[in-house]
Parts: sequence; structure tokens; C-alpha cells
Amino acid sequence: MSTTPDSAVRTVRTYIEAHKAAFLDELADWLRIPSVSADPARSADVRASAAWLAAKLGETGFPVTEIWDTPGAPAVFAHWPCEDPDAPTVLVYGHHDVQPAAREDGWETDPFEPTVKGNRLHARGAADDKGQVFFHTLGVRAHLAATGRTAPAVHLKLLIEGEEESGSPNFPALIKEHAARLACDAVIVSDTGMWSRDTPTVCTGMRGLADCQIDLYGPDQDIHSGSFGGAVPNPAAEAARLVAALHDADHRVSIPGFYDGVVPLTDRERELIAQLPFDEAEWLRTAKSYAAVGEAGHSTLERIWARPTAEVNGIHGGYQGPGGKTIVPASAHLKLSFRLVAGQDTDRIQELVARWVADRLPVGSGIRHKITFWGATRPCLTPLDHPALESVVRAMGRAFGTQIRFTREGGSGPAADLQDVLGAPVLFLGISVPSDGWHSVNEKVEIDLLMKGVETSAYLWSDLAEAHATGSWQQS
Amino acid sequence: MSTTPDSAVRTVRTYIEAHKAAFLDELADWLRIPSVSADPARSADVRASAAWLAAKLGETGFPVTEIWDTPGAPAVFAHWPCEDPDAPTVLVYGHHDVQPAAREDGWETDPFEPTVKGNRLHARGAADDKGQVFFHTLGVRAHLAATGRTAPAVHLKLLIEGEEESGSPNFPALIKEHAARLACDAVIVSDTGMWSRDTPTVCTGMRGLADCQIDLYGPDQDIHSGSFGGAVPNPAAEAARLVAALHDADHRVSIPGFYDGVVPLTDRERELIAQLPFDEAEWLRTAKSYAAVGEAGHSTLERIWARPTAEVNGIHGGYQGPGGKTIVPASAHLKLSFRLVAGQDTDRIQELVARWVADRLPVGSGIRHKITFWGATRPCLTPLDHPALESVVRAMGRAFGTQIRFTREGGSGPAADLQDVLGAPVLFLGISVPSDGWHSVNEKVEIDLLMKGVETSAYLWSDLAEAHATGSWQQS
Repeated sequence: MSTTPDSAVRTVRTYIEAHKAAFLDELADWLRIPSVSADPARSADVRASAAWLAAKLGETGFPVTEIWDTPGAPAVFAHWPCEDPDAPTVLVYGHHDVQPAAREDGWETDPFEPTVKGNRLHARGAADDKGQVFFHTLGVRAHLAATGRTAPAVHLKLLIEGEEESGSPNFPALIKEHAARLACDAVIVSDTGMWSRDTPTVCTGMRGLADCQIDLYGPDQDIHSGSFGGAVPNPAAEAARLVAALHDADHRVSIPGFYDGVVPLTDRERELIAQLPFDEAEWLRTAKSYAAVGEAGHSTLERIWARPTAEVNGIHGGYQGPGGKTIVPASAHLKLSFRLVAGQDTDRIQELVARWVADRLPVGSGIRHKITFWGATRPCLTPLDHPALESVVRAMGRAFGTQIRFTREGGSGPAADLQDVLGAPVLFLGISVPSDGWHSVNEKVEIDLLMKGVETSAYLWSDLAEAHATGSWQQS
Repeated sequence: MSTTPDSAVRTVRTYIEAHKAAFLDELADWLRIPSVSADPARSADVRASAAWLAAKLGETGFPVTEIWDTPGAPAVFAHWPCEDPDAPTVLVYGHHDVQPAAREDGWETDPFEPTVKGNRLHARGAADDKGQVFFHTLGVRAHLAATGRTAPAVHLKLLIEGEEESGSPNFPALIKEHAARLACDAVIVSDTGMWSRDTPTVCTGMRGLADCQIDLYGPDQDIHSGSFGGAVPNPAAEAARLVAALHDADHRVSIPGFYDGVVPLTDRERELIAQLPFDEAEWLRTAKSYAAVGEAGHSTLERIWARPTAEVNGIHGGYQGPGGKTIVPASAHLKLSFRLVAGQDTDRIQELVARWVADRLPVGSGIRHKITFWGATRPCLTPLDHPALESVVRAMGRAFGTQIRFTREGGSGPAADLQDVLGAPVLFLGISVPSDGWHSVNEKVEIDLLMKGVETSAYLWSDLAEAHATGSWQQS
């Protein structure tokens, strides 16, 4: 369709430029709220973040803004109906909680005091995900300005959850409870990134996630390694043996049944992936890693996008202070996460992991253990042939002025739950780039790309409405 | 010989009883000084501990008391010559530094506020080693009271070091520097324990120790496990694989060359060990462990006394806070210790460990590493047939009123250095019991056993002088 007229593009760009400074100031206010969902001490901040967003969406023009409580952190819901009852309904998904961050982790600036350095806005959540949620607020205003409408061309809904960084434990129940109000024809997930500044892309899938903590207990207290060492089991050594046993020599996950049902990549998908301008040396620089290592028989991109993994996110046990302390420690603790792909069921994976751990630490071993799953996120794949996907590609193409290619996302979000519960296709619209430092120190968003996100959002709603009117969407 | 007359025993016991309360008060003053040698923040306390002891030895009567500085923590030297120039010279070794301890580790009382509960004196260092150093001060006074002497029956020297809990890194150099002043006919090490209250024992050997920290570095910062996980090396996983590879399925240490030269137990030694009233269930209760596991083909006592081991004392890397954090961590850190037995050379073991680590983490692995050895303590075995050993057994037998048996000690001390540098046999005199909680929470000494240590010390010097006068000692 590609129907956005040049005059509308000019109006959109002029509108965005006029409101850019205020937009960035408001985003900074939001980023100052340390809405770390994993930390119980931050629960009031997560609530404050939800309240801030709901108020801001009201100012933006959404006639309906609500805070939806969960047993954990609250989500924000907003709804701006179209005058045309036949217009499609589109639900934007994102999250307002953030990963933990502390200055002493190595941040060059306070992670919760947004700092602009040239084209970069540094703060925890700048890219993941507050910046990418927030671009829709100016986007919809620009859409109205360019079209002369008083309401969006689609029935526009937003659902911005507060526990994504904690594995969205209450999200499935939340969307089931509110399924009628969330009903929609498509979901736009704004919680992913692009290939690069020069190769803007649309993501077509996300991996799932199951993560857990395993606590191992040996002696009832730390004991002298001279008096007892060599004759009693050591929980730190047993924790290490568990981690070491997670993978075989081909870097495949060794847990029995782990790969059951995994949907393999098609030749076409491998070809699309291979066509991307991937520079492994550059990727390693972005990763700040010194080697590319992973599952045998797959490229790096295949490993991070389309293959399941097991990763140790944290291990600790015993003495950590200066010098040595000759003990057999009383306990050790593992934080493990499993990335999952289409065909893997999160419940089944949790069962397999728990059974594998129990088999390796039988009662007679002298090591007691406890396994706690933090929640699970299902994997998701977008239908490559959906007309709504073409609308997203066109809107991005207009904003970026270049060809839009396809990627997948190695990270995880609750997209699959939305697809399953709401019966709607899930599309991904994100403008973050790999160097943005998600979950890492010095997280940032590139300000010009953030404004491309605003612009894409401004074009998208009319295009989706027109695509829907042709009828092809409904039939797909 | 067994020459201590009953009247002397009565005098010794009366003298000890009269001075017990003041002795315990003074020991408590010393225990209040948190002389943690492993913690740089405590270096002033370690110096204060040395100064306190030197002053107290002066009050006890030692005409010579000196503080010997080292590049690390200071040692205390004292000398009380005998009137008889032909009397043997005996050097008592102990240490005034202690293991780290903090209330929040699980102590029921402040570890640096000595607390008496019935027969137990609780404090860090109560048994390891301040209590066992300090019993000699009242012991030598009781010896003088019982014999009417104004100086001990032997040339009595004390060397109480300040870095034993840090692996005595400067001790070999210190004793080489002062070898002439430390010259002696026997060394009495008071830094070990007994089998139990009911089975008092003399220890005939200690294991050696080499301990180290291994730092592993992966990506230059923590990175997102969704974006990069499964395609880059993970230093926490590599640290775990190192630990898992330390032992084979028979719980033998897998480092090539580790067992080269190890002196095996003789049949007689295995028989002596097997004769001890060992109750494995009771031992496990003391260890607070839930299983006895160790090197195949050896009993628990053989494993902890006479076999070398590799133990992980601490492991940490990645996220440790509440909930999960989906990262590939930037680094991981291991603290390993190796207990060594006669026939193993500490320098050689350090080389083997460093080479083994380097072989497993080659340059292309993407994991950089650093290995730091904290120091090393050589293993030690006492000649079983030395006449001075008979003196120790007699003095203990008199104090305890029962048969004295033989053990070894799984822990480590710089006894072998003393033996090598000073050319004197090393004997072990300690009254601690396994439940005393060395290196653990709620460390204590049993007050009645502490007073048996005083009493043994009171009898020992005359017996050693007499044994030496017979000439058999010089010939052994």
C-alpha cells in the first residue's frame, strides 16, 4: 500500500522535531524511577513507574488509562478507540520495569540519572524498555497531527507490564483475566532491537526463557578444610559439577529430553540469516567477548536466535573476601537460565531440569538441594506472510528511508502468551541496536533512532487500518 | 622416666587453681583483639595482638621479648634461658592471628567478645590458636612453683607468628633470618588438637597446604544472556568446569603429577589409625555433614590425615541478588586449597596447578585468567621413636590421668619449615577437640581441657630436661 503521502511525512517530521525536547525531558523523568522488579526493596518504585506512565498516557490523549494490579508488580493499560467501529484493534505491548543496576557495577554515570552524551541517552531502561514504549506516545500525537484526526486510525490499546525483567510470572494470568478488554487484531511488541543503524530490521521471533535458582546445602555450617576436607561432600564443588554437566563437548545441553520437539530452522530461514551483513569480529566487540563458542553445527546468529541454550547467570558459595579461607562451605547457589525456541514447552523444561538436578544429587550424596523457578516465558515466532507485518515493514521503511530486513531476537518476552490468549498475530517493532547494553552497564538509546521509532509509530496506524480494510489481513 | 613426684603434681594443681580466674580474664583480653591476618583492614589489630602478647610474656617472666616484623604481620619471640647451660633448648611455636569471623556468619555471640557458657569459652581464636599459645604462660609459672626454680628447666623459647591463617607467607624467611636465635633441640607446636576428651592424643604429623585464587575473565562486562548467551564463553561456567575437573570418579585429584612422590601409609600406621575409637556417625555430626565421601581405597581418617586433597573454598561469579538476572557474567573467581602430605613439594604443586589451569584455558578459549597463590605450607611428619615424644606423652598422661594415643592432623602449620631450618624434631602438643569449631562459627575452647594444657606444660619442661640428660635424645 505505501500510502503515506509526502505531505504527511513532512507534517510528521515537523511535528516530531517541534516536540522532541519535551519528549526527551519526559522520558528522562520516567527513567529516574528505579523500577527494578527483581528487587523486593524496589517494589514502591515499580508502582511509582506505573502511576507515572498512566498519568502520561492520559495527558497524551488516551481516554482510558488504568493500573492493573497483579500479585507482583502492576501493569498499565490504556485504550484510545477509533471513531470507525470497523477499524482494526491493535495492542502495543512493552514493559516499564528494568533490570537491576548499580553505579558500582561499572556504570560511568548514575544508572537512574539519565545522561545525554551526544546522540546517546544513558540510563537503565533507556532502550529496555522505557524508551521503546515511550516513542509511541509522541508517535500517536504525530499521527493525529499528520492526518487531522482526533483519534487514531485504529482502536489503539497499550499494555505495559511491570514484571518482564522478572520473567513475567503473573502476566499469563493477567491477560487471561482481562482477555475481553485486550481483544485485538494484532499485537505490536516494542521490546526488541534492530540489526544495526545501517540495516534496520523487523524481528520475527523471540526465544522463550525458563530461569531458576538452585540452592545446594552441604555441612550445616562452614567447616575446616584441614579437619574435614577430602572426606565430606562440598556443595560448591557439587554446584560446579552441575554446571559442568549442563553441556556436552559439542556445547549441546545435556539435560535428557531438552531438545524434544525443537522446531529446526528451515533452509529458507538459514539463508535469510546468512544474507545479513554479519561481521563476527564486530559482533564480538559489541559482546565485549573474546571468542565465539556455541552449539556445534550452527552459526553464531543461529545459536543466539534459533537454538535453545543453558546459561549460568550466577554462581556463589563459600568465602569471597580478601585472601584465603580454608573451609568446606555450607552452601552454594546457582542461577541458571534456559533460552527456549518454538516447540519447547516451558512447563516440560522446568520438569526436566528439576528431575536432572534431583538425579544428580540423590539423598545419599550428603548434598540437599532446593530448586526455585522464577517464572517462564514461552518462545514466539511471527508468521512471515502476515499482511500486518508488511505494514510494519512499510512504516519502518518510510521512517528509515531504506530496505527493512528480517531478524530474530535471542531475548525473551511474553509475546507467545499474547498470541495464545488473544488469538492475534504478534509483530515486533523496535529501534534499539546491539550496542545499547541491555541488562549491562552503561545502557543507552541512540536518540536519532529513538526518533525513528516515533516516526514509524506515526505512520503505522494509518497503514494498518488500510491493510485491514482490504480484507487480506482478516483472511490470513 | 615419669619422674614428676605426687607432691609436684599437687603443687602444680594448687598453683593452677589459684591462678585460673586471672588466666582466663587475660586470655579474654587477648581474644578481644580481632587479629585477622587475611583482612588488610585488620592489620593494625594483628599488630596490637603481637604487642599485647609480648607485654604479657614479659610479665610472665621471660627476660627477652621481641616483636619481629615481617613484610606482612609481626611475630612475637620470647626467650627464658635456663641456669644450666647444658639443658636442652625447646622452642614453642603457635600463632596469634585468627581466621575471619563476623556475627552475621551465624555466630551466637560476638566472635570478638569472649563469652563463657559453662565449661566453654567462645571466641574466634579461643582454640585456634590463642588459647593453646596462652596455656604455656601459666604452665611455665606452675612449673617454677612446683620445682622451686627461678627459670625453666630448659632454655625456653617461644615464636608466635602472625600470618598462620594466611598460609605463613613470610614465615620461612623469618626463621631463616633468625635461625641462630631460634636454634633449639626440639620444637613444640601448640596448634593442633586431640582425638577427644576421653581419648587424649599426641599428633605426629600435619598436612601441608597450597592455596590460590583463580580469576577468570570472559566478556569485558556482564552481557545479556538473550542477546549473546549460547554463542560466547561464560567465565562462571568455565570456573565450574575447572572445579568439576579437579577430581575423577574415584575422588582422586586429576591434576597430572599431583600424587608424584606421595609417601603412602605403612601397614603399622593404618593399624594405629584403625585402632582409634572412630565412630563415623558421630564424626559426621561433628562435621555437621550428611555424608562421608572421599578418595577410593581409604578410610575417612586416612583421607583427612594422610592423603592429599583439592578443595574449593569459594566460588563466585555473576548475579547474586534477589530473583534472576539474565546475564553472561564478565568474571568468576575461585578459591582453591590443596592439602599436601609427606613427599609432596609445595613449589612443584603450585607449578602443576598453574599449568593445569593454563592448559584448560588456552588463549583461543576467550577466557583470560590469573592465578594467585597465597603462600604454601609444607607437610610434616614427626619421628615416632623420638625420646622427646615420650616426654610429651608422659606429661600429657600425668595431666590427663589416662593413656595417650597417636593421631595425625589434617590441618596445616609451618612445622616442616621449623624442622628443616632449625634441624630439630617437631612435636605436637594441643588440647583442642574436634567440636571446637576451628575456622567456623561459634569457635570455643573447653575450659577444663585448656587447664589440662596448662598442667601438661607445667610437667613437660622438667621431663624434657631429664630425657635430654640421659643422652638418648642426642643420639636419636
